[in-house]
Amino acid sequence: MELKPTKPLSGFIELTPVQQRCFDFCAGRMLDVLRDAGFSNLDLPAIERAEVLTDKDNWDEIETQMFLFQKGDTKMGLRYDGTVGLSRYVAGHLNDLTFPFRASQFSKRYRGERPQKGRYREFYQMDMDIMGINTLSTNYDAEIISVIQRALNSVSEFIGDNYVRVGSRPFWDALFDYLGLNAEQKKNVFVLIDKRDKMGDDEFGLGLSEALKNTKLENEIKSVFINGYSNFVNKSDNLNTAIAELNDFMKKLEVFGVKNAEIDLSITRGLAYYTGLVFEFKLSSFPELGTAAGGGRYANLAEKFSKTKIIGVGAAIGFSRIFVALMELGKIDLSKFESPIVAAVLPMGDIALPFAMSVVNALRDENIATVVYLDTEKKFKNQIEYADKIMTRYSLIIGEDEVKSEQIMVKNMATGEQQKLSVADTIKLIKTV
Amino acid sequence: MELKPTKPLSGFIELTPVQQRCFDFCAGRMLDVLRDAGFSNLDLPAIERAEVLTDKDNWDEIETQMFLFQKGDTKMGLRYDGTVGLSRYVAGHLNDLTFPFRASQFSKRYRGERPQKGRYREFYQMDMDIMGINTLSTNYDAEIISVIQRALNSVSEFIGDNYVRVGSRPFWDALFDYLGLNAEQKKNVFVLIDKRDKMGDDEFGLGLSEALKNTKLENEIKSVFINGYSNFVNKSDNLNTAIAELNDFMKKLEVFGVKNAEIDLSITRGLAYYTGLVFEFKLSSFPELGTAAGGGRYANLAEKFSKTKIIGVGAAIGFSRIFVALMELGKIDLSKFESPIVAAVLPMGDIALPFAMSVVNALRDENIATVVYLDTEKKFKNQIEYADKIMTRYSLIIGEDEVKSEQIMVKNMATGEQQKLSVADTIKLIKTV
Repeated sequence: MELKPTKPLSGFIELTPVQQRCFDFCAGRMLDVLRDAGFSNLDLPAIERAEVLTDKDNWDEIETQMFLFQKGDTKMGLRYDGTVGLSRYVAGHLNDLTFPFRASQFSKRYRGERPQKGRYREFYQMDMDIMGINTLSTNYDAEIISVIQRALNSVSEFIGDNYVRVGSRPFWDALFDYLGLNAEQKKNVFVLIDKRDKMGDDEFGLGLSEALKNTKLENEIKSVFINGYSNFVNKSDNLNTAIAELNDFMKKLEVFGVKNAEIDLSITRGLAYYTGLVFEFKLSSFPELGTAAGGGRYANLAEKFSKTKIIGVGAAIGFSRIFVALMELGKIDLSKFESPIVAAVLPMGDIALPFAMSVVNALRDENIATVVYLDTEKKFKNQIEYADKIMTRYSLIIGEDEVKSEQIMVKNMATGEQQKLSVADTIKLIKTV
Repeated sequence: MELKPTKPLSGFIELTPVQQRCFDFCAGRMLDVLRDAGFSNLDLPAIERAEVLTDKDNWDEIETQMFLFQKGDTKMGLRYDGTVGLSRYVAGHLNDLTFPFRASQFSKRYRGERPQKGRYREFYQMDMDIMGINTLSTNYDAEIISVIQRALNSVSEFIGDNYVRVGSRPFWDALFDYLGLNAEQKKNVFVLIDKRDKMGDDEFGLGLSEALKNTKLENEIKSVFINGYSNFVNKSDNLNTAIAELNDFMKKLEVFGVKNAEIDLSITRGLAYYTGLVFEFKLSSFPELGTAAGGGRYANLAEKFSKTKIIGVGAAIGFSRIFVALMELGKIDLSKFESPIVAAVLPMGDIALPFAMSVVNALRDENIATVVYLDTEKKFKNQIEYADKIMTRYSLIIGEDEVKSEQIMVKNMATGEQQKLSVADTIKLIKTV
């Protein structure tokens, strides 16, 4: 019989137990931050109706980007982000929720596209969104940024420091109007700006020339990437409003305790959803990883699902992107996660089992991570070898003598030191270290 | 424009924020139990190659049971359990893992079949498996059962008590041999036994008659459901061995501290995998929910993936089945999860924002769950209404006076009592309650 493949499908992540412990630890820390900031965790279905996932009906093309399937008459697929499901959920529960409603999600997302280096087809993102009915102060935009920074800082021992850059969609809208671009030009230029990071200056310049066919306009747009908004102060009311909003917002970020924040108008966060301020975080020590977290404000989150106007500000932390990428690069110190086991109980023969299991249960009752070696007929040598391999801190050896005396031979695996202790003293020793 | 549907697809679970908090809390407690029992958490891909998911190639039929899709030339699908992925993973990492290897998984699984009442198409299971190379003492079977009971007991305040029933696959093999059944009869009778719970006695009897066409054999088999193994003591060596193993195992369960355990030979755990002892847990107060957890021993877990013989004992807790079903029935006391917010900071106008945000950050630094109402132009009435609705324990009101005095007006929302306190005293008050 031919053996089946043991590798996961390409583009799918599989961590070692040590990596997974780090991943879970960091997720837990960051989720604690979100919980303490009052976000309600939502765990929504990974599968949605195709009509919820997309407005388009060119299925052949969409199928190359998503995991889609059909059951009976219903086309459905795996979510590619957390926002589609959240919009549907909030629109369906308007009367059950208190607004402003704070939602967090930590879940797997899927991209059905052909796998590429550094792109996963299944990955975790950690989302947070604050939503209001009809109105939502930009104070909340500042708060979301402060909470993201707090979450990233909570695991800074692993990923280092971070910084945030803030852009403005209204600035670009005002600029395009001021420059007199038509609708098609606006769209084309915006696509170029969004892809600029991946293009390089030459290709970006060529793209602009093609889209605008007017050197003066091209240079005006290029100037934003060099001088920010400085060429456009007092050029139009809308430009002034957008610039003032951005400057006020940067002051507000200070009030909210945010560090390392600057304006960067090249941040636009793609074409969808966003209508206000937008922002991106990077890791100070690993800017080459790209965006660690990003988000912004949307004027009408759930318009496809409800006539109620839901204004939102939201962001997603690229959790797999950060942690899996850094682990693959060997940039995360995993030493803390290598030996989760505190005590390995080693019973020498079935005769030792009743006392050994009473010890195991007593330790587990005290939340001490404890394994027990239960192939009891194996020699001491095999058992202590196992204890060594799993890097337990203590081996608790229990043979006939120990059963009789109700004492445990406790071996400190780092020092090799051994001592006979009662169960209570063993627990005391382990807990005081 | 027609609005899109806001309900999830049928068969998919969507909890309220309050329910989700209970769900997450119980998952966390139970995962802590598994971690303290030395299980390594694995988070494997939800998507596997179709050839990993199934040996069959009648795709049309399989597609009615699974979510399958094709990308390029590769057929793939969503996992329906945790065992297929685990087998693949362990076979692929034989040299990286220390055996006996303890793995836990808490993840979503998928069934593509037509939705039925009480059957979910997306659901969580919590798996634990212990695997050994070539050898694995049945002590580990007892340990798995003790750990499941420990996990269920850790949330007994929500789901009550539990009991476990133990069956034996070798007993049935020995019985079939003793009764002289041929291969086809064995298979047919085993299918009947597996479905007996859902059938009722009459249908089961009719099925047996059809399969065996011999009243004496039918009665022998029926006797097991009335008298257990008692008619079959000293009938064959294999029967004696199976019965002795089962009895020894029940004594072992006591040694491992397991409560409420009894033999029940009608437990067989379906047709796949299992080759040794099998077991099922139910909830004492809700036996009608069916199996809360189940598992058993398999002689060769990864034979499809590796020539190395991996013996395993494993179990899955039907996490969604238990918690979602009990919540839907209103059987879980959710009161503890209704008000997760400890402090709502209410700034009266933007002028109060700097002091208010310093308070928010100070509270969050102390891991106090804190929200802040940031539509600062809203009237006090609106703000306190919001604080009321989210059921915060304290409202921290900050107006011009408070900014000047650097004191907070702290309102206990349960008693209505108000007092002016410094930030430090506010934290002290909140932490001592």
